Order: sequence, then C-alpha cells, then structure tokens
Amino acid sequence: MKALKELQSRLLEIDDLNHAAALLRWDQTTYMPPGGAEARGRQTATLSRLAHEKFTDAAVGHLLDQAQKETASLPYDSDEAALVRVARRGFDEAARIPNSLVSEFNEHQARIYQAWTVARPANDFAAVQPLLEKTLELSRRMAACFPGHEHVADPLIGFSDYGMKASSVRALFADLRARLVPIVRAVASRPVTDDSCIRQHAPEADQLAFGLKVIERYGYDMNRGRQDKTHHPFMTKFSLGDVRITTRVREDEITDALFSTLHECGHALYEQGISPSFEGTPLATGTSSGVHESQSRLWENIVGRSRGFWEHFYPLLQAQFPQQLKNVPLDTYHRAINKVERSLIRVDADELTYNLHVMLRFDLELEMLEGKLAVKDLARTWRERFEADFGIPVPDDRRGVLQDVHWYAGPIGGVFQGYTLGNILSAQFFAAASKAHPAIPDQIRAGEFGVLREYLRSNIYQHGAKFTAAELVERVTGGPLTLEPYMDYLWNKFAPLYGLREEERTAVEAH
Amino acid sequence: MKALKELQSRLLEIDDLNHAAALLRWDQTTYMPPGGAEARGRQTATLSRLAHEKFTDAAVGHLLDQAQKETASLPYDSDEAALVRVARRGFDEAARIPNSLVSEFNEHQARIYQAWTVARPANDFAAVQPLLEKTLELSRRMAACFPGHEHVADPLIGFSDYGMKASSVRALFADLRARLVPIVRAVASRPVTDDSCIRQHAPEADQLAFGLKVIERYGYDMNRGRQDKTHHPFMTKFSLGDVRITTRVREDEITDALFSTLHECGHALYEQGISPSFEGTPLATGTSSGVHESQSRLWENIVGRSRGFWEHFYPLLQAQFPQQLKNVPLDTYHRAINKVERSLIRVDADELTYNLHVMLRFDLELEMLEGKLAVKDLARTWRERFEADFGIPVPDDRRGVLQDVHWYAGPIGGVFQGYTLGNILSAQFFAAASKAHPAIPDQIRAGEFGVLREYLRSNIYQHGAKFTAAELVERVTGGPLTLEPYMDYLWNKFAPLYGLREEERTAVEAH
Repeated sequence: MKALKELQSRLLEIDDLNHAAALLRWDQTTYMPPGGAEARGRQTATLSRLAHEKFTDAAVGHLLDQAQKETASLPYDSDEAALVRVARRGFDEAARIPNSLVSEFNEHQARIYQAWTVARPANDFAAVQPLLEKTLELSRRMAACFPGHEHVADPLIGFSDYGMKASSVRALFADLRARLVPIVRAVASRPVTDDSCIRQHAPEADQLAFGLKVIERYGYDMNRGRQDKTHHPFMTKFSLGDVRITTRVREDEITDALFSTLHECGHALYEQGISPSFEGTPLATGTSSGVHESQSRLWENIVGRSRGFWEHFYPLLQAQFPQQLKNVPLDTYHRAINKVERSLIRVDADELTYNLHVMLRFDLELEMLEGKLAVKDLARTWRERFEADFGIPVPDDRRGVLQDVHWYAGPIGGVFQGYTLGNILSAQFFAAASKAHPAIPDQIRAGEFGVLREYLRSNIYQHGAKFTAAELVERVTGGPLTLEPYMDYLWNKFAPLYGLREEERTAVEAH
Repeated sequence: MKALKELQSRLLEIDDLNHAAALLRWDQTTYMPPGGAEARGRQTATLSRLAHEKFTDAAVGHLLDQAQKETASLPYDSDEAALVRVARRGFDEAARIPNSLVSEFNEHQARIYQAWTVARPANDFAAVQPLLEKTLELSRRMAACFPGHEHVADPLIGFSDYGMKASSVRALFADLRARLVPIVRAVASRPVTDDSCIRQHAPEADQLAFGLKVIERYGYDMNRGRQDKTHHPFMTKFSLGDVRITTRVREDEITDALFSTLHECGHALYEQGISPSFEGTPLATGTSSGVHESQSRLWENIVGRSRGFWEHFYPLLQAQFPQQLKNVPLDTYHRAINKVERSLIRVDADELTYNLHVMLRFDLELEMLEGKLAVKDLARTWRERFEADFGIPVPDDRRGVLQDVHWYAGPIGGVFQGYTLGNILSAQFFAAASKAHPAIPDQIRAGEFGVLREYLRSNIYQHGAKFTAAELVERVTGGPLTLEPYMDYLWNKFAPLYGLREEERTAVEAH
C-alpha cells in the first residue's frame, strides 16, 4: 500500500490547509477586529488556493491510479477502498475546474458578498444585479466543466448532494409540495397561534447557559468543541477533536438562540461522531449537505420541538426564566414554539412552510441556469412567485430576493435543495431509530438521549463520507429516500396542534 | 521593476502562510478546546513548513538577484531597496538551513516543550535532560550552517538581533554588570519595601477594565487589535490591521495583569505603528528582538512605573479599587510597584535585578554552545551561579533552570540577550524623545501620551524592519547603543526611592 500511504500524506497536508482556512473564517466572524478584514480575506483565499492547487496536482491523480490498483481486491466497504473512492471523486471534481476559474470565482465572491452586505440593508437589488449576472455566468462555466450532464444544475447539485440531479429533486419537490400545501392551507384556516409567551425579554447569559445545558445532555463534547457568538450561526470543524458551533442571541425572544444552538449542535454531533481513524482524510466529513442537514433538523425539530422533550426541559426553562414563564402552561409554550405562519423569511420559518421557501429558491435557480429567467427579472419574479405560493405580498427585496446570503457567497445552484432533503431525511432516520429502539420517545421524555445518539453515531456519524447519501439511507432505513415518514411526522405533530381533520390532509391542491 | 513585483507577490503568499500559522497558535492558547491540540500542532507545523519551502525556493533567490539589479540605483533608504535588502538577508539565512533540519527541529521542539510542561511542575530536570542535549546538538548544527562565524552563538544571536555577536553582547553585559551590582548591593542594604498594598484581592473584570482604559490612552487601536486571556501573555500579529495582545490575571495582586498588559501593549504599538505600505512584506515587523523589547519596557516601566504616570492614574486606580487602595498614599503605592528584591523568577524581577537574570542565562548558553558546560551539569551550575550572583539559594529546579520556556521551545542561544538590549534601548530612546520634546514628562503627568507615541511612531515604528537596530539607534539618538541613559534612568529612579548616596553608585564591585 505504498501509493495509498503517499496519497494519505498528501491529503493530510491539503486537509491541514483547508482546516487552517476554516479557523481563519471562524475567527473572522467571532473575534477579529474590523481592521483585520482586508488581509484576512486574502489570507483565507491563499490557503484555499494552495489547497486546491495541491489537490489537483497531476501527481495526486497518478497516486490515485496506483492506490486504486492497490485496493482493487478490498471489499467495497473497507476503509481503504472507501478512502480511495471518495478521494477519487473529489479529485475528479476538483481537477476539472481550472485553477483560474477557481481564483476568478473566489475574487468575484469576495466582491459580491461585500456588495450584498451593503445592498441588503439598503434594499438595493440593483446594486448587486450586475454582480449576480456575473455569478450566474461563472456558475454556468463551472457546470460546463462537467460535460454530459442532463441538466446544467446537475454538477452543482452533485457537489453538495452527490447522486441527486435536477430531475430527481424536481420530482421529489413536486410530490412534497402537493402534500404540504393542503396541510398549510388547513392550518391557515385556524386561528393564529399566540406566541407572545416566548417573545419576552431574556438576558443573553441565561439563554446561553440554558442552551449549553441542553446540548451537553444531547452529548455535545465540550472537550472537543465550544460555542461562540456570531451574527449568523454555523458549525465548523478544525479537526475531529475541535468541532465548534456558534449562535446568536436576540434578547427579546426566549428561544431563538436555543433552537439555533440545537440546530448547530446536530451538525456538530455528526462531525464529532465520525470515526477517529478517518482523521485527516476526505472521509472525515459529513457525506452530503442533505444528510448533514438531517441531523441538525432532527436534533432541533424532531427532538427539540417535541412535546416529550419539553415535558422534561420545560420545568428547567421555567426555572431559568421564572418571571417570564412561571405562569405559562407547557401546552401554551409548546404551541408557541411550533407556531405555523406564512411569513417572509426562510430562516425564521416554521417546519410546515419552510420547504416552500426552499422550493421557491430551487425553482428560480434552475430557471436562471436554464436561461429562462434573467437576473434583471429575478427580484420581480421572486415577489410574484412568493405571493402566489404564500398568499402574502413581499414588501421589499430586503425581505425578498436579498434575504439569503447563498447566491451572494457562492454559485447559483446546488445549495438550497440540501435543506429540504435534510428535513425529509431527518424524519426517515428518526423513524428508523425509533423502530430499532421503541423506547426512544420515552427516553426523550426523560431527558435521556444516549440511545438515540448512539444509534445515529453507529449507523450514520461514524461512517463520515464513507458511504454516499443514497447508500447510507439504504443501509439505515432499508430503502431509498421516501417522503412517507416526513409527512407522517408533520401530520402527527401539527394535526393535534391545529385540530386538523384527516380529510384535510389530502385535499386537492389547486396551485 | 518586474522582478520586484513578482518577488513581492511570492513574499505575500509566504506572509499569508506565516500569519495563518500565527492565528493557529493564538487560538491554541486562547480558545481551542483540549481535543484540538494534536491536530493543531500538525497544522501549524504544515503551514510553517510550506512557508519555509516557498521562501527558500531557488526561484526566490533568482528573483532577489534580479530585483537587486532593478533597485541598484535607488537610495539606500528607499522602501524598494530596503525591501530587497531585508528579504535578501532573510533568504540567505533561511536558505542555508536545510528543510530537513527545520523539520527535525520543529518535531523535536514539540516533544521537548510537551516534556517541559510536565517536568517543570514536577521539578524534574532529569526528565528533560536528554531532550535538552538534543536541543543543544540541533542548535549547534543550526549554527554550523553559517560557517565563518567568530563564535558559535553568533548566527543564533543574529537571527533575532542582527548585527550583534557574542563578543559585543559579552562586553556590553560585563560593563552593565559592573555598574548594576553596586546599586543592587546598596539597595539590598536598605530596609525591604512593604508592597502589601498591591498584594490584595482584586476581581478579574476590574483589573481588565482598568488595563484597557490605560492602553487606550496609550493609543492602542482597538479597531486593529484586541486583548484575550492566556497563561503566558504575548503579542501577536496577523496583519497590520490585526495586532493582538494577551494577558493573564492573578486575583491576589492588583497590578500584575496591568503591567503585563502595558508590556504587551508596547510591543503592539510598535507593530500597529508600522507604515501601512509595508503590509505583506518582510518590512512589516519589528527590526530586532532588542528594539521590540525596548518598546514593551518603555511603555511598561519607563512610562508605566513612573511617579508622573501615577500622579494621573492613581486616583483612577483608587476609584476602581476603593476598598483596597482608598487609604494607601501614592508614595506607598509607587514604592510597592517599584520594589527591588533579589528573587528567584526572572519574569517577576524588578528593573534593577532583571538584567542579572538575563546575564546568567546568556553566560550559561554560551558555555553550553562552546562545549564547556554539559547539559548534565546545567542544573547544578545554575544553582551555584545564581547563589553567587544573587546571594540567595535556589530551592529547586522548578524555580531554577526549569523556570523559562525558552530552552524548551527553541534553540539554545540567541534569545535572552534581547531582553537586556531592550532595557538599555528603552532608556536611550526615551531620552531622545524627551530631548526632542521636553514637555513629555509633564504630559505623562497629565495622562497624555500623544507626543511621545507620535515621536516613537515616526522615528521607530513606521520604519518596521527597514533599518537594522544599529542604523535605527544611530538615526534616532545620533550615536550607537550606549549604557549611559539607562544607568542614569535607573539611578534617578531608585536613588530617591531607596535613599542611595552618590558614592554608592560607583562602589567597587568585588564579584
């Protein structure tokens, strides 16, 4: 295994560069003084560029060829065969994109991101429009590096959700939309939930303390992680021994920081659970955007917004915020944190309407990539579609096409689908776990998460990127990705909360 | 200037790698969870190795040759000529040391540092002795990369204090010792200062708040810096826009954190004051260890422990710690923070005895490098010499040969002299500043530091590494490094504090 050894040592160096770049980004959003911004952007770009250059070096391709021969007789699911397979896939992807295009993209990205941070608060889509046209052009050029695709978005989707294509996502989303809309409509016909009990002042320190208490119970290992504050919460990893999360706190809301903490903790549990033997290799990461998101949503929503969870934690929350919650019954609180409302902002959306936000973006980016929708018409089209989908007008672009950072910090295409794939998978994985361990719901009610976490660790987390998302779903659930568990989960949760009748679940959808 | 442009772009990439490595180290001592340690050591080493490889690439040598031709007709003190000159010096140094020796040193360093962190608290010199023998061997091999030196320590001294040699430092230290010892003896014959007023409990937050207040008055730019807590305080820089300091707090001491903050702030003022046009080049750093230390000691001691400084700040300190200091007169406090005492630990030493600590180490490392002192005899020799110099026995190696990290985290040789050079230069530079602006002492008394800082910025800081230490001293003070201003400073400060008589200043020294 001489070539494999040499390959691993090269991959380790690339891994070091990439994780150093990740630390530079983390510091930029947590502690860096403003004066550091300019050099920091350049330093991060330098590390990323060196990592890309080193990865796409012809010698790596040669070593991959040899290592493939060396591991040819090993079983498919041996670690060595998987390492070579996953490294090969990454190499073939990276090597097709010329260094010059990577650099051009990175430089453009820094520029449009900077412009967006100004344009969003100023509600000024025109200011970013020409830059977004450039992003679209670059995204198409990137896709064009992968000839033979069925749809121009396919290579971009494949970067983060390997195995998925525009056609498969489209079909899935159409099905999901048809099943979601009747439920959303039915809920909308009920009285609006009063969530004023969570919209109260709560000191930052108390919110952070409570969140930390919960994620330690979830099993987040603070010896291999920490939480800091940022504007936009995220999870990041510098090694399997250092998986950090960030959160933000709104002092006029009791639970906003909490659910963001639980969400990022779900991502972190995945990374902390990866087999230590994968350290420094391309296997030491989540396998896809969708599977990653399935874990953040599972721990945030399926566990963290469940009635059972709060049977245990609500008394503790009341003890942390006695003045605010002393006289609020558990049911009132539980309704408040699960309030369904058609609203403008994706990241604040409830579990039922969230996917409609994602689908809107997914459809628009496909149309842009196909050349059917021009960037100059994007803001208007957004407003029209949104009103059609949600029944509420979009008062400005700040709360419309400018709200998400994604198109202003990366390619157009290939990112949003992961959120909805994650929602679907979270329910499918949770159903499999509960089937294997029927005591899980009772354990959650008792504030115990060990069996669930250990099930997820041994079935999903430890494998890192060893199996593709499709392989993993098959291994864990015994079948392919399917909507049933997710729709059952949503119905079983929201039907009682909103008093929905069975016939409302399948009402014919006119849209 | 085609070659110069290309050279700068290569140097910028190297600079990015080195500053990224610096951030990795900063994070390691401030926020990194324990689980991150192993990978972090490797990541930092990878970045440093890549930077060294890229710097010592033959192409850089070739570009330097061409750039030297391009800039040959420019005046000596033009930025372009200086850039090429300083880059050349660094290249010639780095290129002589084989990558394999750099790697061997780095690996050994990680091992001995780790062993020292255990051996020091355990008072176990024997545990590090064989490793220290290896350090000595590596240090000599490093020196041997520079044939033609007069003394084996010269190349190592030259790394941090370019232009100094063992012989010149020795002569200077002999002179300094002869002048210091009589004063130390005279002080020792006086009653011991009572410093109990500063040895009182003081909450961490209040100590940090007061320190920040002072350094903002010094002119530390918080938009281009920040302060965090670490075990061992230091200053570090990621760009000219991001110059950070760290401090430590002892809650049983009112001023320990403060003086460490003022010290690191002095280093930071130097780096923040470098001309922005030097960003990303080898000119964007302090010119030598001695000159750097002159600025930390100037702001910590000459300004920060002066009577005038406290005429302004003592009422503010009393307001921050009313319970502790309300009834303590300024004179009592000022005596306490300037207490002279022959003691075991260098970093806690007063201004008078501090240099004796440095000289002990400097002498021992020269003798080790010369092969006159074996590592196995080091601990014993330390105890004997210390007792001879200080008149107090060394109770254990923890407070003896194991106290400083330096020999356990780098080569033997070339580091300690910078501390005493810094002390000497701090007084020489301050005297020059006061001569140019006689109002400076009165301004300090009023808590105003703008004129002093601006003098230092325009005469020292802005030049970065453009001039050598010797050139800079000549430019600023009109002559070479000299002891007179330092001895005058010490005498004028401590004679009144301890009621010393003029004839005690020059008493014949028997040692």
